[in-house]
Amino acid sequence: MADSPLKLTILGLGTVASGVVRILTADNEPVSRRAGRGFDIRHVAVRDASKPRDVSLPDGVLTEDWKAAVSDPEVDVVLELMGGTTTAREAVLAAIAAGKHVITANKALLAEHGDEVFSAAREQGVCVAFEAAIAGGIPIVATVGRLLTGNRIQSIAAILNGTSNFILSEMAGKHRTYGDVLAEAQALGYAEADPAMDVDGTDAAQKLVLLTQLALGKRVDLSQFVRQGIDKLELSDMLYAEELGYRIKLLAVTRVVDGQLEMHVQPTLLRADRAIAQTDGALNIVELEGDAVGPLVLSGAGAGKMPTASAVVADLVDVAIGRAQQTFPLLDLWQQDSELTVMPPEKIELRYYLRFKVADQPHVIADIADILGRQKISLASIIQHEAPEIDATDSGDAIVPLVIMTHRTTEARLRAATDELERLPSVTARIMRMPVAD
Amino acid sequence: MADSPLKLTILGLGTVASGVVRILTADNEPVSRRAGRGFDIRHVAVRDASKPRDVSLPDGVLTEDWKAAVSDPEVDVVLELMGGTTTAREAVLAAIAAGKHVITANKALLAEHGDEVFSAAREQGVCVAFEAAIAGGIPIVATVGRLLTGNRIQSIAAILNGTSNFILSEMAGKHRTYGDVLAEAQALGYAEADPAMDVDGTDAAQKLVLLTQLALGKRVDLSQFVRQGIDKLELSDMLYAEELGYRIKLLAVTRVVDGQLEMHVQPTLLRADRAIAQTDGALNIVELEGDAVGPLVLSGAGAGKMPTASAVVADLVDVAIGRAQQTFPLLDLWQQDSELTVMPPEKIELRYYLRFKVADQPHVIADIADILGRQKISLASIIQHEAPEIDATDSGDAIVPLVIMTHRTTEARLRAATDELERLPSVTARIMRMPVAD
Repeated sequence: MADSPLKLTILGLGTVASGVVRILTADNEPVSRRAGRGFDIRHVAVRDASKPRDVSLPDGVLTEDWKAAVSDPEVDVVLELMGGTTTAREAVLAAIAAGKHVITANKALLAEHGDEVFSAAREQGVCVAFEAAIAGGIPIVATVGRLLTGNRIQSIAAILNGTSNFILSEMAGKHRTYGDVLAEAQALGYAEADPAMDVDGTDAAQKLVLLTQLALGKRVDLSQFVRQGIDKLELSDMLYAEELGYRIKLLAVTRVVDGQLEMHVQPTLLRADRAIAQTDGALNIVELEGDAVGPLVLSGAGAGKMPTASAVVADLVDVAIGRAQQTFPLLDLWQQDSELTVMPPEKIELRYYLRFKVADQPHVIADIADILGRQKISLASIIQHEAPEIDATDSGDAIVPLVIMTHRTTEARLRAATDELERLPSVTARIMRMPVAD
Repeated sequence: MADSPLKLTILGLGTVASGVVRILTADNEPVSRRAGRGFDIRHVAVRDASKPRDVSLPDGVLTEDWKAAVSDPEVDVVLELMGGTTTAREAVLAAIAAGKHVITANKALLAEHGDEVFSAAREQGVCVAFEAAIAGGIPIVATVGRLLTGNRIQSIAAILNGTSNFILSEMAGKHRTYGDVLAEAQALGYAEADPAMDVDGTDAAQKLVLLTQLALGKRVDLSQFVRQGIDKLELSDMLYAEELGYRIKLLAVTRVVDGQLEMHVQPTLLRADRAIAQTDGALNIVELEGDAVGPLVLSGAGAGKMPTASAVVADLVDVAIGRAQQTFPLLDLWQQDSELTVMPPEKIELRYYLRFKVADQPHVIADIADILGRQKISLASIIQHEAPEIDATDSGDAIVPLVIMTHRTTEARLRAATDELERLPSVTARIMRMPVAD
């Protein structure tokens, strides 16, 4: 029995699924050898089976009937690679109910319905594996869930969204505007037609929620932490960061501070000489800190056809061998809740970069410094260049950018100060704020 | 049964073993939870049980009788953390013969006696786990052996020896000499009293042999590839490298080139802006390239008490869960041999840095260029500074350093040229040669 091929149903035949089919149907001797058995793709369920595809499958494999494909009693494992949270949820729950192990690359599904999916799997005695759901080809789910078992993880700092990172890298490296790069990324197919989840930080936040569960056994909801996207960044922010010796990355952070969990996803200034600051393009990186292992860094392709397929196949081999089935019941997946509490956002202390657009009038800096001072926010540095912007206020004053770097302060103080600052007549636009990593 | 504690014998109570005992005896709830069971340290075998130690163990656990400790029928797992290749080999084979699973951090043992150890384990149906044997806390054994199973690994480039890397980092960062840093490292306990295996590249080469087995299923002997240590490096080499935009690292390389395996361990010039060039101190780094995943980089503590203990405990949890037992028979460990052949060293093509000490006489550069030219080695750049060294030849000429960067050439041509060059009267010392990474 152990040597019979594992029988598979694949849901979807998009980019990642095509990559998986390629690995399993090309010269797959290394995979079968490591799995100790072969793989037999029984069904590939798609919405439109008549659509031309560049993947060749045996006759009868392609089907539009996902329900039959998922419940075929012959099938051992269902690979959910269709995406979305509606049919995907239904299909995954149906597969579990039919006693199939499930492999998925769908972080949105797990972030939104993880509780339901994992509970159902535990009840049925099957496993749900999801290496491909976080950071594409980087084996971070296994690393956190299985390879650092002797550690208490103390912090995670990561770049988890390839689209955002591509946009930021292009802006910083080639001094292009946000809109310009986004349009190109969409034309190239890097960014979705609707890139909202990528650029507003939701995708990175969903992955951080999953990683935090695995690393710390703590269930956190997206509403419990600050999530800021990259869509308000201007080219001038990249230039100021560069001038100050930093680079800006959409950083997802979870760390234990005084027994509480500090979490946030925000564009963040990172010292330019750090590896994480130099992680460009579609690459992802995860910096972990464990009490025994110390700092550990993994970086690699965070998305893309073959890297993500690599992660899916790793899960498949784990199921073929039986490792995934042993691992799953012991993972901290919505099963119990850690005693750690999530730090209220307003209590989080960070250093900040603040970029203002101010009217070029006397006393502006004094007014701003006064408000910050009353909120006990002390200033580390101020940059104001001579070159005025072309815009002008109604009164005819030129508008100039002003950048302030603060010392550590709380989110609460910063919010109070920002509210007051934005009411100053000389402050002509919303203030751009980003934390500065230590 | 699955919930009963796993019963352990630990061989040795040095640095790493003390770290393991600390993780297992301190507040170990996270470890037991992830393992699904507790751990019971039955025996810790040491050479001298009367020696004072800063580890507290229950009465009766410490013993000088490793044979009894290894064969106790109650014990499930033996952790070999004594080091060496004589008693360690005997003890590991005795443990396997007694039906125990073995966890070891001993790369020298596995590099020298892997065949015997792994065969014995397969025959007995037990497993040998060795995450801690390579790159300390970095989970590279699991990554290569279990997490990239959908890939053909195409290259490995790694810093695998912490002592060498510490010495090189100090030389480059603080412009200190090799001897000066080595003496300090020995005083601090970083380097062994006899650091030969670390600084001559043997330790890194043993680890590379193990990684190559895991990644490519290919058995390679240390005698089949070039192994050069850091002990011939001078401070001037660090300074020239810096001037040229490089940093020098003891780099262990395995890569598939035209269907053959190119392997070497050598101090290597790496572009200063690469993450691997910036990996300093006792850190290790492994850069992998898989055909599906693309480039993947892992970095972290390559040695030290708690990082290495983290790796040992990860193996222990894998044995407790039963994953290690499923994995071991499927790993490519001396079990079969890949069709890949090892490229003969003389055929390997690389770019080189050559540093000469030459007499400050007319025509020296012409003579050197002529010999290189006849070996078809073309020059990319030459550096000769004005400042003469204090030494002088018998004839009274000042001795000056001369650095040449070559284009790609073979080891065979380089050897032939070096032999001829070192016979030139104006070349007053052995030529220092190091490859330059692409």
